[in-house]
Amino acid sequence: METRALTDADALALARAEARAGRTEGGVPIGAALVLDGAVLALGRNRRVQDGSAIRHGETDCLENAGRLPASVYARATMVTTLSPCDMCTGAILLYKIPRVVIGENRTFRGGEDLLRERGVEVVVLDDAECVTLMRDFIAAEPELWNEDIGEE
Amino acid sequence: METRALTDADALALARAEARAGRTEGGVPIGAALVLDGAVLALGRNRRVQDGSAIRHGETDCLENAGRLPASVYARATMVTTLSPCDMCTGAILLYKIPRVVIGENRTFRGGEDLLRERGVEVVVLDDAECVTLMRDFIAAEPELWNEDIGEE
Repeated sequence: METRALTDADALALARAEARAGRTEGGVPIGAALVLDGAVLALGRNRRVQDGSAIRHGETDCLENAGRLPASVYARATMVTTLSPCDMCTGAILLYKIPRVVIGENRTFRGGEDLLRERGVEVVVLDDAECVTLMRDFIAAEPELWNEDIGEE
Repeated sequence: METRALTDADALALARAEARAGRTEGGVPIGAALVLDGAVLALGRNRRVQDGSAIRHGETDCLENAGRLPASVYARATMVTTLSPCDMCTGAILLYKIPRVVIGENRTFRGGEDLLRERGVEVVVLDDAECVTLMRDFIAAEPELWNEDIGEE
């Protein structure tokens, strides 16, 4: 069987599929993928609506789905997320010393990118038009749910 | 029925009981309480061992147990935790704009206290001897588990 290492765009497409699945479930359309050596370790998506969760954002759900991993694995991993990571998800990336973060877009929300860079994390923003549209449509349709998710009134 | 507002020490005692319960379960002994107007909204404890969880630390488990809350509730709440919050839990406190954090001790681990203060959060360190002993005994007994929990080799 031929295997091919995933590009950042490939991994983002998987994260975006998670986001879309979340929206179909009535949830917040943010998804993530944890990638190691060009292969997906875990996928995740925001589960505020689906699980009534305050802590399962795209990235944290992905980390939870990846299970307990040694520091040596996180140290070689990339977190791919459809949206610029909020403070909590930024902190989760820093806790586990994930050295690289790929972000679908940061036009609709900008999280802790500066802090990530200050702490030595490589941050790549793909500025993906589909991710932008997904979030813009969601925010327009459900502004209260979006504000709840980012801790705003 | 008489009700009395919890003091910080009262709330820390509840968080410490969560930490002790976690240790009894074979887990990482860190607990937390979310307090609003002198009453407990939710308790939580680290569930790395119990649930195989990478994201349920004391504070995040407590936030999850509290459920989906409006920003107006977080805005009046205090997070009480037995140990100085790691980067992820620091970020969760910042995401939800919890204005006050009470920490049992920061001798065995010091997390994101400076970032919390920079962002305007009031941080109170009680330097509780029982919390210190609980963590020192745990770290001595299970150094690998502790390192895994804080993302170290």
